[in-house]
Amino acid sequence: MSETKPALYTSLSPALLNLYDISSSIVVIIDVLRATSTIATALCNGAKEIIPVDSVNECIRIGRQIEAITAGERDGKVAEGLQYGNSPFEYPSSFIAGKTLVLTTTNGTKLLHMALNNGAHEIITGSFANIDAVCEYLLQKNKPVLLACAAWKDRVNIEDTLFAGAVISKLKQQFSINCDASQMALNMFDDAAKDLFEFMKAKQASHYLRLSSFGLEKDIKHCLTFNTAPVLPLYKQGKLIRG
Amino acid sequence: MSETKPALYTSLSPALLNLYDISSSIVVIIDVLRATSTIATALCNGAKEIIPVDSVNECIRIGRQIEAITAGERDGKVAEGLQYGNSPFEYPSSFIAGKTLVLTTTNGTKLLHMALNNGAHEIITGSFANIDAVCEYLLQKNKPVLLACAAWKDRVNIEDTLFAGAVISKLKQQFSINCDASQMALNMFDDAAKDLFEFMKAKQASHYLRLSSFGLEKDIKHCLTFNTAPVLPLYKQGKLIRG
Repeated sequence: MSETKPALYTSLSPALLNLYDISSSIVVIIDVLRATSTIATALCNGAKEIIPVDSVNECIRIGRQIEAITAGERDGKVAEGLQYGNSPFEYPSSFIAGKTLVLTTTNGTKLLHMALNNGAHEIITGSFANIDAVCEYLLQKNKPVLLACAAWKDRVNIEDTLFAGAVISKLKQQFSINCDASQMALNMFDDAAKDLFEFMKAKQASHYLRLSSFGLEKDIKHCLTFNTAPVLPLYKQGKLIRG
Repeated sequence: MSETKPALYTSLSPALLNLYDISSSIVVIIDVLRATSTIATALCNGAKEIIPVDSVNECIRIGRQIEAITAGERDGKVAEGLQYGNSPFEYPSSFIAGKTLVLTTTNGTKLLHMALNNGAHEIITGSFANIDAVCEYLLQKNKPVLLACAAWKDRVNIEDTLFAGAVISKLKQQFSINCDASQMALNMFDDAAKDLFEFMKAKQASHYLRLSSFGLEKDIKHCLTFNTAPVLPLYKQGKLIRG
């Protein structure tokens, strides 16, 4: 008995999100450097919940209101007025366990709100830090999937595309993929899989250059490592919680 | 003496075009299957000029007004009301020499008008059919370049990205490339260069599937062949002419 496989698409930039009908899809928000890696890490290390917001002011306002940790970046640096940044290393369990984090980032949290406004059936976040958890969830749900790359100010980037390719590499037999962006992502991941960091460096990826100029090579390496934070961040009623 | 190299960027979809300041750039319109391949072929075979228009009605109106050949497609087929389609094989010199062609296509001619409206410094069209002519022109001009892929209804496609990669492969030493989309295009072209048609087939590129379902594999093969129409289509005062 043959069953129809659910469709899988990849959106390489937030500016392309509205090309896809996501009303019955699970949307995977991908912002490898570094929002979704940090989200997985903080939840894995015991954060109670993460409230993604799309502006610094909103972050400060909510942080005060509920006495939560405010964190976020603009252009790769801690945003003015916020307490913490967007590095997974800032959120060890000794610091984050049991706490609520209010987070805003240049690209990732904005994209999450776009997906919400576009009527996504369900929203989760993905990164190499929790790739297996993401893939297991998508397999188990067996629904249409949109892999949504946060990119950089709408410009396509290598690392989010690589993560989309990595997911496709694991799920391609179980989903119907008629999507050139997905094929391109998979092809690039296959080229890069041996050493993602070296690939990013060799290709002079723009985010590699940006973060390494801030001395954050360690962050890049960590965010390109598989399954360091094996949790599923699930968006429910305004919050990301462990799924 | 070191000189600053001009910048080169790649826009993978018309929906991303407005991320780039093109006021001092040469914009290369890329619609490999099949608009820009057909444009190069028709000009190479002696067409006097090609008037790209963005709607079928406008195509019919201008065609009547100047007694020109009207041609174009919507969704890969000859558009209703027009005389000819979007296949390079429809324009041998025995037919097209000395004539004016008014052309509208799903993606390519629309993108050309977007680039015009966005204030492009100069517009040319590129395809594998005239890749060397394009590269020689860009080298000679030594100005910033935007490789603008027409894609398919704003969804990124493999063939236009491959062409961008092919151009970058030839020009990368002479331009400054800090653009992930360009690196991704180049990486994919390097994988595909041995046999572009087999690559498109193996990746089940959406346009490969669409055109081959219409029996147009011959068109695909032709449009993926280098330098079959060595001319430079240059946009001037509403017309594409031999540069």
